[in-house]
This record gives sequence, structure tokens and C-alpha cells, in this order.
Amino acid sequence: MTKVYDRVALIGLGLIASSMFWAMKRSGLAGEVVGFARSAETRDTARKIGLCDHVYDDVKEAVKDADLVVLCVPVGVMGTVAAEIAGSLKAGATVSDVGSVKQDVIQSVGPHLPDNVHFIPAHPLAGTEHSGPEAGFAELFDNRWCLLVPAENTSTDAIAQLRALWEGMGSNVEEMDAEHHDLVLAVTSHAPHLIAYTMVGVADDLGRVTDGEVIKYSAAGFRDFTRIAASDPTMWRDVFLSNKEATLEILGRFTEELFALQRAIRTGDGDHLFDYFTRTRAIRRGIIEAGQDTAAPNFGRGAKDGE
Amino acid sequence: MTKVYDRVALIGLGLIASSMFWAMKRSGLAGEVVGFARSAETRDTARKIGLCDHVYDDVKEAVKDADLVVLCVPVGVMGTVAAEIAGSLKAGATVSDVGSVKQDVIQSVGPHLPDNVHFIPAHPLAGTEHSGPEAGFAELFDNRWCLLVPAENTSTDAIAQLRALWEGMGSNVEEMDAEHHDLVLAVTSHAPHLIAYTMVGVADDLGRVTDGEVIKYSAAGFRDFTRIAASDPTMWRDVFLSNKEATLEILGRFTEELFALQRAIRTGDGDHLFDYFTRTRAIRRGIIEAGQDTAAPNFGRGAKDGE
Repeated sequence: MTKVYDRVALIGLGLIASSMFWAMKRSGLAGEVVGFARSAETRDTARKIGLCDHVYDDVKEAVKDADLVVLCVPVGVMGTVAAEIAGSLKAGATVSDVGSVKQDVIQSVGPHLPDNVHFIPAHPLAGTEHSGPEAGFAELFDNRWCLLVPAENTSTDAIAQLRALWEGMGSNVEEMDAEHHDLVLAVTSHAPHLIAYTMVGVADDLGRVTDGEVIKYSAAGFRDFTRIAASDPTMWRDVFLSNKEATLEILGRFTEELFALQRAIRTGDGDHLFDYFTRTRAIRRGIIEAGQDTAAPNFGRGAKDGE
Repeated sequence: MTKVYDRVALIGLGLIASSMFWAMKRSGLAGEVVGFARSAETRDTARKIGLCDHVYDDVKEAVKDADLVVLCVPVGVMGTVAAEIAGSLKAGATVSDVGSVKQDVIQSVGPHLPDNVHFIPAHPLAGTEHSGPEAGFAELFDNRWCLLVPAENTSTDAIAQLRALWEGMGSNVEEMDAEHHDLVLAVTSHAPHLIAYTMVGVADDLGRVTDGEVIKYSAAGFRDFTRIAASDPTMWRDVFLSNKEATLEILGRFTEELFALQRAIRTGDGDHLFDYFTRTRAIRRGIIEAGQDTAAPNFGRGAKDGE
């Protein structure tokens, strides 16, 4: 594949940045990929496992000659990092990020950046419940969506270049405005995460059923919740606090529906339950058809035939 | 492996029964496995794919000479089926079931059965979101738990025999009393299912975010909910209606916690969120260590290295 950028700087070396590094290397998308992490321990780990062509101890040095700077830090510290690097950015460089919330990032990062750089917020919809520099792998973005959220007056060349990078890393790319992004993600990600965290917390807290029982018998449905609820606590705290309005709106709708279903259970209204459960099944079929999950009967666990 | 039963009759030929058939055949656990399904279409499919050594059109014929009869029908019709077969059961036979709720099944099935059979309710904690005779596979129960819920005066020989069958099909077996079973399952399965159904329903119903967007961007967390929420509607309607009390209790606790977290988001209490999310991460580690899920960073999707 053709090189897209000469020099890329990854700021923050967690799951997403490390996966980006391996994905860029897989296809030769960048001449050089350098990195910075605030924690000395993370920088040491990165150097040890060969993550980044060079790891800097100083964030300003890391971004200095970069054609693309990607902020891969929790949403809550994006603004602080932007303020630190603003004076060291190369003229004509593109600054992007991988935050799960976009309106808040635009408000906190945008004002710090000089006029001679392109700011193109982005959000790859990919992840695992693991975090840190060793969690990344080159295939993380394959066939996953990456949403670009550029402001209206952004250079189309700069957008096309960032799109080419994400496509080169395996993603399908789409553009979206920031407000709609935050609502879509509240539905597909933020509310489900809070709900999963809540359910796992309830199970942990229930005196009459032991944690051991919950863990042993998790295959009955709970397991999928724990996977979601094991995601990085710092990242998710920041997501909820910075996409407050949309998340609370969706949670309000969720509670309303939950109460209606609870009432159907209490009153024995089987038809209401059956109709509701039939409708939700159709969405699942759509996801399988869209290639965003596997229909293998065993979820790819254990069996050989079904895979 | 040694034969455990001479003749087994599976009543209802869906995901669990068909998986039991293939699992018994895999290890030669039964001399003959016969089956019955109420729907002629299901019986035709079963005959076509070689599911069961013989498929009967009459449930009484199916159970007549069986040493083990397993009711694999939705919880809501267990009692009706028990009434139908009661007069045809062989003396000394064991009657079991695979229902997800145990107190209700015991109350609806137990009174119909003659004194000369052993009634040992069971519940394999395994499943997929697929249903029907073609959904089964031999490995479904491998390393999954099967809970036996025998009454106090049940023959220990009969229990040991049923345990041997489930262990032969790959399960880990444990005994539990029915009331505790229903509470444990309300936490690990029934409440999570209702919550997943609810969230998927909300997403489907939200005018401002299209179904297409929900489906495309599901990888961000929502996907795992849709897998749960695609489970068989009839089965789950019956589960909620027959484990009403425990499910509503857990949902009450869930709502309480959810409101506390919503309040933390609204008031910007990041510490509360961070502490809660840190605690839930530990449960996930327990599940990985207990072998009930994979820690592969990509969930076994796509990548080759991580598997």
C-alpha cells in the first residue's frame, strides 16, 4: 500500500494507539510513527515491545515534525494535551483524535490549535476490554467503522488523506456531524456500557448470590455484560461526563421501556413480551448481514464445525 | 465412553435437544436416542438431518420404553407435556427437563408424574441466540455448567446416572435447590436478558438514529446486547413469566443502581463512576480465570495472532 503520511505522532500509547501503530506498519502507511505517553512505565513498555519507531519523553518533541498528530488520550485530558502541543505543531499538519465523544473534544481541543493546522476529529468504533500499550493488534480496525467529524470549512485534501489512512488500517470511513455522532454513540455504545456496568455491579453486590456463583454461571448471558463492563474505567468515566446530555436522554428512554416490560412481567402480559422480543431479533439479523458480527452458532467458542 | 442409558427420549427438538443428541452420539452415551416435536415441520427437519435415531409423531410412543425422558420444551408448556406422557412412562424411568426456571417447572410437572419414576429437574447453562432443530452442535455443553435440582428424597443412583450423562456431554455438574437456582439465574441470565432486550428495543424505536446506523455502528458495545436479545422469544417470555419474583427483585436492584450512576453523571461525580467501573472489572477477570470466556484481545474475531 502507498505511504499516506511521512511522519505520524501518536500521543497516548494505549489500546487504540498501539493498534494504530501495528496497523500502519502492516501496510506501510507511514514513513515513521513516533509516540509519547505521560507515564514513564508506559514509555518503557512501548520501547521494550517495539511500539513506535521512536518514543519521546517530551510531548512537544514528539509532535514537532509530524504531518499527523493523533491524540489517543482519555477525553477528559484532550484539552490539556492540546494546549501543551499547540506551539510545537508543524504548519500544515493535521491534528486528529480517537475520542469516543466529539462535541466535547471539539470544544476542548479546537480553541488551542493554531490556524495553520487542520483539525479533523475522528472516532474508530473498535476496541476490546483490554487497555494499555500491550493490548493493541494490527487487525483491530479491520472491517470496523471510523467516523470522521470535520468542521465545515476543513480542507478536503486533508480529510481525504486522513480517510486514506483509516481505510489503509482496514476501516470503513464515514463523515458525520459532531452532535449526531454523540447521539448515535449514546445509543450504540455509551448507554449499553453504563447498563452493563450497572448490572455487573448489582451482581457483585448481591449478598445472597456469591461472586463465585456469578462467575461460574456467567455463560447464561451475564458473560457478555462483564466483557463490556471490564473496559477502561478512566476512559469511560470521561465518556459519560463529556457526553452527559445524550447519554442521560437515552438512559431515560431505556428506563421507561424497562418499566413497561417489568409491568408486563408483573401483570403476566405474555403477548407484550413476545412481541417485543420478536422485534429485537430482527435487529440482530441486520447486524449479521452488515458483517459486524459472526453468526457462527457457538460464537466462535470451542467447536470446530461451526466456524 | 460407557453407555449411560439404553434409551433416551427427547421431547421438543430445538437448540438444546439437538445439541444433546449430537453430544450423546459423540461419546456413545445412549444406546438409542428418540425424539418428538409437536410441529410436523420440526419432525420433518429432524428426519432430514438425521437428528434422533427415530422421530415419533406421537409423544406417548416416544416416551414409552425410554429410560430417560428429557423435556426440552418452553417452560410454559412443561406441565401440559408432563400430563400427556405421564401414563406412558416406563416404571423406574428418569424424567428430567432443561428449563431455565426450576421452581415453576417442579410445580407444573411434578404433580403429573407417577410415583414409580424419578423426577430430576436440570438446567444446562449453555445456549446461543439460535433456535430450532438445526441450531444444535455437539460441543454446546463443553465446559459449561449443568445444574441439577433434585427433590430431597430422590434416588442417589438416579441422580448419579443423570450426572454421568451430563458429564459425558462435556458439562460440569452441580446440585442446587430450586429457589436458589432461580435467584442465581435471575442475576446471571434472566435480568441481563430483559435488560438487553430493552436496550435493543429502545435503539430500534429511536426516530433520530436510524436502524441502519444502529446496525452499522453496533461494534461499539451494542453488538453484545443484540446477541442476547436475539434469543428465542417464546422461551424468554415463559422464563420471565415463570421466574417473575426473582427477576423483578433483581430488576429493582438494577434500577436503583442505575439511578445512582445516572445521578453521578448528572452531577459530574467522576470518582463515583471511576470506583464503580474499577470494581466491575475484577468480576471479568474472575470469569476469564474460571474458563467461562476467552481473554483473547479480539474476542476471537478476525485476527490470527490473538487466538
